Amino acid sequence: MEAKCSSDSAGKPIRCRAAVARKAGEALVIEEIEVSPPKAGEVRIKIICTSLCHSDVTLWKLSAGPGAVFPRIFGHEAAGIVESVGEEVEEVKTGDIVIPVFQSNCGECRDCKSQKSNACTKFPLQLSSGMPRDGTTRFMDSNGQPIYHFFSVSSFSEYTVVDISNVVKIDPDFPIDKACLLSCGVTTGLGAVEKIAQVEEGSTVAIFGLGAVGLAVAEGARLQGASKIIGVDLNPAKFEIGKKFGITDFINPSTSGEKSVSQIIKEMTDGGADYCFECVGLASVMQDAFNSSRLSCGKTVLVGMEMHGTPLSINSYDILKGRSLIGCIFGGFKPKSDLPILADKYLQKMLQLDKFISHEVKLEDINEAFELLHQGKSLRCIIWMHK
Amino acid sequence: MEAKCSSDSAGKPIRCRAAVARKAGEALVIEEIEVSPPKAGEVRIKIICTSLCHSDVTLWKLSAGPGAVFPRIFGHEAAGIVESVGEEVEEVKTGDIVIPVFQSNCGECRDCKSQKSNACTKFPLQLSSGMPRDGTTRFMDSNGQPIYHFFSVSSFSEYTVVDISNVVKIDPDFPIDKACLLSCGVTTGLGAVEKIAQVEEGSTVAIFGLGAVGLAVAEGARLQGASKIIGVDLNPAKFEIGKKFGITDFINPSTSGEKSVSQIIKEMTDGGADYCFECVGLASVMQDAFNSSRLSCGKTVLVGMEMHGTPLSINSYDILKGRSLIGCIFGGFKPKSDLPILADKYLQKMLQLDKFISHEVKLEDINEAFELLHQGKSLRCIIWMHK
Repeated sequence: MEAKCSSDSAGKPIRCRAAVARKAGEALVIEEIEVSPPKAGEVRIKIICTSLCHSDVTLWKLSAGPGAVFPRIFGHEAAGIVESVGEEVEEVKTGDIVIPVFQSNCGECRDCKSQKSNACTKFPLQLSSGMPRDGTTRFMDSNGQPIYHFFSVSSFSEYTVVDISNVVKIDPDFPIDKACLLSCGVTTGLGAVEKIAQVEEGSTVAIFGLGAVGLAVAEGARLQGASKIIGVDLNPAKFEIGKKFGITDFINPSTSGEKSVSQIIKEMTDGGADYCFECVGLASVMQDAFNSSRLSCGKTVLVGMEMHGTPLSINSYDILKGRSLIGCIFGGFKPKSDLPILADKYLQKMLQLDKFISHEVKLEDINEAFELLHQGKSLRCIIWMHK
Repeated sequence: MEAKCSSDSAGKPIRCRAAVARKAGEALVIEEIEVSPPKAGEVRIKIICTSLCHSDVTLWKLSAGPGAVFPRIFGHEAAGIVESVGEEVEEVKTGDIVIPVFQSNCGECRDCKSQKSNACTKFPLQLSSGMPRDGTTRFMDSNGQPIYHFFSVSSFSEYTVVDISNVVKIDPDFPIDKACLLSCGVTTGLGAVEKIAQVEEGSTVAIFGLGAVGLAVAEGARLQGASKIIGVDLNPAKFEIGKKFGITDFINPSTSGEKSVSQIIKEMTDGGADYCFECVGLASVMQDAFNSSRLSCGKTVLVGMEMHGTPLSINSYDILKGRSLIGCIFGGFKPKSDLPILADKYLQKMLQLDKFISHEVKLEDINEAFELLHQGKSLRCIIWMHK
């Protein structure tokens, strides 16, 4: 059975540029690599643009443990054009505009069929370094050595291969740079508010960490009509930025004096915020968020990924009065059914994505994007792959 | 302003019998005590019958810490007749049949007005030893020394004084011994399923601890149409009892071999139970329950009260994929609005309460009730106060 597309490159390896992470924490290297054709159930995508997310930086810095795999091509927020498809792929065809998404959505497994979860039992989320179906890589360097994948996407390459379970087709008229943003961080924040916490009008919200995810939580809370949206961040510059996204109050833990953050939030909200969101990924901040939630019904949503393995320790008596603690990946959204809805909301001007884009660079300047995010100077930096 | 009732005893102290806990863990002593008239906002109730709950036993055993207060009158599951009311009480009158409930419900505070919580901000739940409004006691022993209250109820006395916020009026035709059961444990289990977890048809449920609360969870899960209801208990006799309440599978951790309980449950449910309920009150069991829940959407409801102060420690990565952890008191039910609905369900034969009553004793034999519960031989033992 032949691949079903008819582009000239279909079925053959493609040589193209990619930003390769050779060692943990060291500057990415722009190299010419070879990208194999897609196997059955896979799609090869020409990445038009990609954006840098904190998870890329976190894993890039990781020098030990099962998640530390090098050489690797990072990047998991992106948009592109289908170059060719492997056997058994019916859902997209050459030329379609697509968003690759780290969260799989096979559509057939128990979780994909359930309305209660956005996980995928067939291809569970892993810090994988190969393709979901066979674990092998589609990337090779100029010495014929393998380069590993990241989060089933690897978008810091002009071409990448992604499983069809990780591909969402979107309207070809959708602005391609905004499409990138729907691929991880912004969607995660919006979903945490709308789908997971179900924040309602007039409620109080506290957000720990005002990166793009935290600001997307603010945007979501604003859209839901929250009456007070408290931002907590060590970077004082985040308050001015946050105001654009609906942040009404700001706490800088390093300058807030003797009172703990949770005490301050309890005073500001008459007993604790209705909804607390942890968007940092630190167990200690998760505890602060939990302690800042209303004792009788406060929900704490864990959005940040704790990569240090530090356990979250809570006094069970503190949860018993009606609090809850909820974790989510990708904001609880199912990629294939929910992303088109978000895209439509943007086109209907109900959702703002533009203001998340703070910087733009070309592929060859990708290390600037890392530096900007690392210093807390950027929200989302769009990396244009072919300019 | 006079008290609004007209019974002969109104406004005067009443001498009656009570089971007094003089020291932690020591047999209760049947004494003649004096019960003061109700103050403003309070109600004096002639307790007809009461039942023994694990929380009574737990606090009775507690020899140190702020919860260890003696001499004290325990008991918080009961039903009785209003003997007289204090000033400002409009809601009930002498002769009304009522259930006293440890969970306050003033009806006026932010939480009472909210649909999201069953807490009461005005009179928050405390291991209180006095009346909610002024902290003083209405009980005095024959030497004129104070005896302290328990959980705002203290039903192991022929007469008690309770705040109107802790009183629910019920249909006078409702069987009085079944009314007791609505006062704490059974309601807690039913609410945890229906109100907190919102268990749906066909889902899988694991229950840790098969006392009356755990069995009420089973009863609730059965009513909601759960397809598999797994009971976990160290007492093998609980399986036979559990079957009556809908338990379909049983795990005894002491005889289950090398596999952990969570491993066994994951195998039985193809990946973890949709809903796990902790009805023991031990941090280690809470962790087992959490680990037994489905990774992508499993809800763990904490029902048991951990009195040892041991923190609950979880790996935040284990919650991130979509699990949640929810605490509740009194099953999330609001006493004044929800108890009459439960009572009606019983009268309509939709809810079974009778099978929770395993034993009955007279007040003078109350220590037998403690012994039976302590040995895991009883579910609910009704203690008749005036026979």
